[in-house]
Amino acid sequence: MSSPQISVAVLGATGSVGQRFVALLDNHPWFKVVALAASDRSAGKKYAQATRWVLDTPMPDYAKDMIIVPANTNAVQAKIVFSALHTEIASELEPQFAQAGSAVCSNASAHRRDADVPLLLPEINADHIQLIKQQRKNKGWSGCIVTNPNCTSTGLTVALKALDDAFGVKKVFAVSLQALSGAGYPGVSSLDIMDNIIPNVGNGGEEEKVEWEPRKMLGKLNGGKIELADIKFSAHTNRVAVIDGHTVCASVALTNPADPQTAEAILRNFSAPESARNLPSSPRPVISLRDEADRPQPRLDRLTGNGMTTVVGRVRQDPILDLKFVTLSHNTIRGAAGASIYNAELLTHLDLL
Amino acid sequence: MSSPQISVAVLGATGSVGQRFVALLDNHPWFKVVALAASDRSAGKKYAQATRWVLDTPMPDYAKDMIIVPANTNAVQAKIVFSALHTEIASELEPQFAQAGSAVCSNASAHRRDADVPLLLPEINADHIQLIKQQRKNKGWSGCIVTNPNCTSTGLTVALKALDDAFGVKKVFAVSLQALSGAGYPGVSSLDIMDNIIPNVGNGGEEEKVEWEPRKMLGKLNGGKIELADIKFSAHTNRVAVIDGHTVCASVALTNPADPQTAEAILRNFSAPESARNLPSSPRPVISLRDEADRPQPRLDRLTGNGMTTVVGRVRQDPILDLKFVTLSHNTIRGAAGASIYNAELLTHLDLL
Amino acid sequence: MSSPQISVAVLGATGSVGQRFVALLDNHPWFKVVALAASDRSAGKKYAQATRWVLDTPMPDYAKDMIIVPANTNAVQAKIVFSALHTEIASELEPQFAQAGSAVCSNASAHRRDADVPLLLPEINADHIQLIKQQRKNKGWSGCIVTNPNCTSTGLTVALKALDDAFGVKKVFAVSLQALSGAGYPGVSSLDIMDNIIPNVGNGGEEEKVEWEPRKMLGKLNGGKIELADIKFSAHTNRVAVIDGHTVCASVALTNPADPQTAEAILRNFSAPESARNLPSSPRPVISLRDEADRPQPRLDRLTGNGMTTVVGRVRQDPILDLKFVTLSHNTIRGAAGASIYNAELLTHLDLL
Amino acid sequence: MSSPQISVAVLGATGSVGQRFVALLDNHPWFKVVALAASDRSAGKKYAQATRWVLDTPMPDYAKDMIIVPANTNAVQAKIVFSALHTEIASELEPQFAQAGSAVCSNASAHRRDADVPLLLPEINADHIQLIKQQRKNKGWSGCIVTNPNCTSTGLTVALKALDDAFGVKKVFAVSLQALSGAGYPGVSSLDIMDNIIPNVGNGGEEEKVEWEPRKMLGKLNGGKIELADIKFSAHTNRVAVIDGHTVCASVALTNPADPQTAEAILRNFSAPESARNLPSSPRPVISLRDEADRPQPRLDRLTGNGMTTVVGRVRQDPILDLKFVTLSHNTIRGAAGASIYNAELLTHLDLL
Repeated sequence: MSSPQISVAVLGATGSVGQRFVALLDNHPWFKVVALAASDRSAGKKYAQATRWVLDTPMPDYAKDMIIVPANTNAVQAKIVFSALHTEIASELEPQFAQAGSAVCSNASAHRRDADVPLLLPEINADHIQLIKQQRKNKGWSGCIVTNPNCTSTGLTVALKALDDAFGVKKVFAVSLQALSGAGYPGVSSLDIMDNIIPNVGNGGEEEKVEWEPRKMLGKLNGGKIELADIKFSAHTNRVAVIDGHTVCASVALTNPADPQTAEAILRNFSAPESARNLPSSPRPVISLRDEADRPQPRLDRLTGNGMTTVVGRVRQDPILDLKFVTLSHNTIRGAAGASIYNAELLTHLDLL
Repeated sequence: MSSPQISVAVLGATGSVGQRFVALLDNHPWFKVVALAASDRSAGKKYAQATRWVLDTPMPDYAKDMIIVPANTNAVQAKIVFSALHTEIASELEPQFAQAGSAVCSNASAHRRDADVPLLLPEINADHIQLIKQQRKNKGWSGCIVTNPNCTSTGLTVALKALDDAFGVKKVFAVSLQALSGAGYPGVSSLDIMDNIIPNVGNGGEEEKVEWEPRKMLGKLNGGKIELADIKFSAHTNRVAVIDGHTVCASVALTNPADPQTAEAILRNFSAPESARNLPSSPRPVISLRDEADRPQPRLDRLTGNGMTTVVGRVRQDPILDLKFVTLSHNTIRGAAGASIYNAELLTHLDLL
Repeated sequence: MSSPQISVAVLGATGSVGQRFVALLDNHPWFKVVALAASDRSAGKKYAQATRWVLDTPMPDYAKDMIIVPANTNAVQAKIVFSALHTEIASELEPQFAQAGSAVCSNASAHRRDADVPLLLPEINADHIQLIKQQRKNKGWSGCIVTNPNCTSTGLTVALKALDDAFGVKKVFAVSLQALSGAGYPGVSSLDIMDNIIPNVGNGGEEEKVEWEPRKMLGKLNGGKIELADIKFSAHTNRVAVIDGHTVCASVALTNPADPQTAEAILRNFSAPESARNLPSSPRPVISLRDEADRPQPRLDRLTGNGMTTVVGRVRQDPILDLKFVTLSHNTIRGAAGASIYNAELLTHLDLL
Repeated sequence: MSSPQISVAVLGATGSVGQRFVALLDNHPWFKVVALAASDRSAGKKYAQATRWVLDTPMPDYAKDMIIVPANTNAVQAKIVFSALHTEIASELEPQFAQAGSAVCSNASAHRRDADVPLLLPEINADHIQLIKQQRKNKGWSGCIVTNPNCTSTGLTVALKALDDAFGVKKVFAVSLQALSGAGYPGVSSLDIMDNIIPNVGNGGEEEKVEWEPRKMLGKLNGGKIELADIKFSAHTNRVAVIDGHTVCASVALTNPADPQTAEAILRNFSAPESARNLPSSPRPVISLRDEADRPQPRLDRLTGNGMTTVVGRVRQDPILDLKFVTLSHNTIRGAAGASIYNAELLTHLDLL
C-alpha cells in the first residue's frame, strides 16, 4: 500500500473539527481526500475561501483549491466518509451514506448509543469493530457507521481500560476541565471565559455522555451485542480557558484494590490489541505515565504522541475509594478527528471496508 | 460604638493577602489600623512605596503614608493583630503576640490544627470561639490565636454545614478550580497558566488541608475540645486561569438522603448563628443559591455579598452518592482577609478581646 | 432636585452597552428609568429573563421585573432616551425620538458626523452642546440628538485637549490595545483571542473613527457650526485579551514644544469647564496622571474615578515628534454608557431638555 | 557535510531561551551539541533534572541525560558557543570564549553595540559578518563574537530592509505588543498580565533597543566599520497576554513614497542575500505577506516558516507619513535561539569559524 489509494471525504469540513480532519489527512499514507463537503452556504466555493481557519498549523495545500460540495450521497462518493456533522444532521445523513456503501467514521453523537454501532477506541476495544457485521445484517447496508466517543470520555476511558483489565473498576468519579476548541467555532465567547470558568458543558448533556459512553466501550461484545460494563459513573464537567486538551480528575473504586505504584506500572505498560497497534494513527505510547507532581498539563502535554496518546499522572491513594489520578487527552485529535481516522484505519487494516 | 476605637494591626501587610486586609479595613466601623508590619526589607518605608499594589481597587488613602514597622511585639501594639504571615514565620510570631495580649486573627495555617485554637467560619461554627478560654488557660495568655481555614475549604464547608445539619454528611468528593491570587504575588508564572491548568496546588498540601480542615469546623465542641466530624473527604486541587474566586465541584453522601429540591431549599434558607449574623462583615446572605444551569461562575459571582457570601449552584442527583453541586467563594475575601476580620468582629461582639 | 424626577429610557437595553446603562442608572440622583426597550424578540419579557447579564456587578433590582418594550416612540416615552442601538437601527430610530420630543443621548455612531449634532465629551467641549439649537432649528424638533464619541477616541481626546490648550497639537500617532467588551456580546470568540491579538478592529472602521472624531471634538464652535481642528491623525487599532479598558499609545507633535515635566503638570491640572464640573457623572479628576514607569494598566486603573477618569502615564520625549504617552479609559463606562449619561446630565443642568 | 560534525555548546541552557536552543539543535544537520552549561546551582545534574521545561514540544532525547557543566572555558570546549546568558554575565564570559577560540553566537545584548561586533540578521545584512575580521584583528582572538538583535527589533527590521532597499526609509514609528516568553521564566506574574497589558517592557530599555539596533543592521559596512543608517525611530513597547510572537504596528516615512500595492509586492518578493539563502535555518520565505484584513496574528502565524519567517500584513497608506503595516516574528525562534543558530550557520557556510 505504497501510495494513498483509498478515497475519503469529510462532511462538515469547514468547522473546527472538520479543519482538524483536513489537517490530519494531509499526507496520510493510505487515504486520499476526494471531497470536502459542507453546508449549502459554502458549497461551490474554494475551501480556502469558505473556511475561517482556526488551527495554529497552516491549511494544507491540497485542500486550498478544492471546491466544496454539498453533503449528500450524490455529490460525495468515497470509500470512507468522515463525519464532523452536527448531531441532528448526522442522525439523518450518516445512514444514507452507509446505505450508499461508504464506511462512515463519525465523530457525531447521533448513533453512538445504537445497539449495532461500534463506539470505538481501537487501542482498547478494537474487537467491537465486529459489531458492524450485525449492523450490516440488520440494515442491509454495504457501508457502515462506526463512531468514536465524546472527547471528554476518551482519555478517561483509555486509563480505565488498563485499570479494569488489571483490577476491575467498579465506580468512577470524574470532574473535567475542558478546552474551548471542544465547543467549535465561534463557540465560547471570550467574555464568558476570560478570568472565568463555566461549571457546565452542553447544558448537562456532556455529563450524561461521560456517565454512559465508557460503559459501552468497556463492555463485552457477546453474540452480536455489547453488554454494558457494570461500572457506576458520576461526572461534573467544566469549561476552562484552555485552547486544546481536556483534563479529567478521577477517583475510582476497584474490585481488587491496588496501590498507586502497582497501578502506575499497569498504566505505563498498557498496550493496544495487536490489530490496532501499528496503524498510522496508533498512539505511541497508548498511555504516557507522568511521575511529576504537577503533570499532565494541557499546554505542555497535549501533543504527546502527536496528540493521540492519553497522558496520565498524579496516581495516588484515594481516601474514600481506591485510587485518584488525572488524565489528559487532546480533544480535537484523539478526542475527535484523529479518533475517526484511527477507526477508519482499523476498518481498512481488517478488510472491513 | 459610633467611631472606630479598637486598635488593629496587619502583619505581612505588603503581600497580596495583606493588601486585601488593608483594603477591607478602610472605613471599618469598629477597627482602626494603628500599624502595618512587614519584613525588615520594607520596614521604615511608607506603605505606598514599599508595596506593589495588585488589587483592582485603589490603595486606601489612610494606608499610603503609614510607615511600615517590623513584625514584632515591640513595634506592633494593638488589641487585634491580623496575620497574613507565611506559615513558618506565623508559627513563631503569633504566639508571641498572643502572649503580649493581642487577639491574633490569623489567615496562616500554622496553628489551625492546634487542639485549643479555633478554626472558625462564624456563620457555621461561631460557638467554637469558646475554645480560646481553654487556650488561655493552657497557655497563660491574655491574648489568643483564632484561625480561619484554607481558602479552598471555606465555601465547601459552608455548604456542607447546611447539608450536615439537615441530612447528615458522610462522604465528600471535592475537586477545586482555584484562582491565581491564592498563590500570592508574584505567585504563578504567566507561562505556567496561560492556555493551561496546573493539576496540583501546593504540591499536595492543599488536598490534605481540604481533607482535614472541614472535619474540625464541622466538629462538635465538647468539654473544651473539638471532636472531628466523622466525614470522609477526597480532594483533587487544580490551579486555573482565574484571578479571584475558588470553585469546587462536590459530590456528597448523606445519612438521610435528600432530593435536589429539598437540598436547595435548605441551602437557600441557611442562616448564621445569632451571634454571627449582624456583624459588619457578616455574609448577606450566607449562601446564595443559583438555579441557572451554568452558575456559579467566578467572574460574575465572586463579589456576591461583598465577597463574603458562598455561592452554590447546580444541585443535582449524584449517580453514586446522593448529591452533586458546585460552590464558589472569593478566596482572598471570604477565604482569607475577610475571614480573619469577620473572626475579629465575632471576638469583639462577644467581649472576648 | 432631591429625588429623581426626569424620565429616561434605554434603547437596546439587553446588549452589553445597554446593560452598562442599566447598571449606571441604578440610584441615579436625577434620572428615573421608565422604559427598557429592545428588539421584538425580547419585548414582552421581563428584563431579567431576556438578558444574559455579562457585568461582574449584579443586575440592579429595579430592572429585573421591568417588562421590555419595543424600541419605538409609541412604546417609549421619556424625557431622555439613551441609545445603545446598532448603527443602522440608530440611524433610523433616533430622529424619530428626537422628533417626538425626547433628548436622544446616543452611543451609536450613526449621527456623530452630522454637522448639527454635537459630539460631546463634556469635560473638554461642553460648549458644543449649543449646537442643538441649530439642530432644532434645522429639523424642527423639540427633542434633539447628542452623541458621544467612539470608545477608543475618548481617552485619547481628553489628553489631547489638555495638551492642545497649552501647546497646540499638530500631529498624532495613535495605536490602540482595545478590550473585548468593546465588541459587545458574544462579540469576540475565545478561540480568536486566547494567546493572541487581532491587529484590526471593526475591519478598519475603527481607525477611521479615531482619525476623524477627535478633530470634531477639538474643533471650535463658530456661528452654529464646528470647524474641525487642524490636526493630522494616524491610527492603528488592535484587539487584545483584556475585558474592559482601552489603552492607547500616542506620539504627538506640538506647535509649541514642551518637555515631559511641563506636559505632565498641564495634564495633572486639567479641569473641566465650569458647566461640566459638578455633575453626578463628572470625572473626578478629569485626568489621573500616573508617574510609575508601567502605568496605566487596564486591570488596575480602569475604575479610576468610577471609570469616568482618563488615566495618562509614561509621558516622555518622542525622538521624532515631541511627546509620547499612554492613555487608558474604561470603554463601556467613560467610552460608552457613562458618556451618554454625562451628556444627559449636561443637557439637564443647562436646561436644554 | 553528511553528518553533524561541528561541536556546539549552549551557555545558559536551562533558561527559556536556552531550552529553545536545545530544541532547535535537535537533529541539526551540521551541529552536534557537546556541552550544556548553566549556573553552578545546576552544574553536575542531568539536564532533565535541572530544567523546568516550558516549551510545548517535548525535551529532545539527546539532552535529557547530558550532565550540565559550568559556563567556563575549561568545562566548555566547542567550535561554536551559543549564548543565552544574562547581559551582565555575557559581558564578562563571551570574550573569554572568543579568546579561547570559540565562535560565540550570542542572543545577549552585552556586545551588540560594540563597533567591531556584527549585529546580524543574515537574510538582510549577511555582509556585516565580515566585521569579525576587524574584531579578530582588534582583539587578537581566534574565535569571535556575533550577536543577533533584540526580539522586538527583529521582524520590524526585516520588513524595513525590504522597504529601505526599494524606497529609502526615513522615519519609523513602532508600537510593540510583545509575548510573555520574551521575559523568560518565571518572568511575568500571571496576576500582572491576566485581563491586562503592561505598557512598558524592560523599564524603557526595550524602547532604546528598538530605536537603535535597526540603525546598525540597516547601516553600511564601510572600511571595517558600520555607518549607522540615517533613520529616526520612535518606539512604544507593551507586554500582552500572548505566549509567543511579537507584533509591531509600524508607520514609516519613505524617501521615495510608494503606494501600498507597490510596497506589498516589494515585501512579498524580498529575498535573502545569496550566502544566507540556503542554510538549514534560512527563513522560507523571508517575508510572508498576508492580505487578509486581520493578519498577522501571533497564535495563527508565528510558526510560519518554522518560526523563522517575518509575517507582514495590513500594508496601507499612512495619513501622516507614507505607509502603515504590521509585522509579526516569533520572539524565541527568529528573535532569539533560531537567530543565533542561523548566524552560526552563516559563519560555517562562509568558512569563518
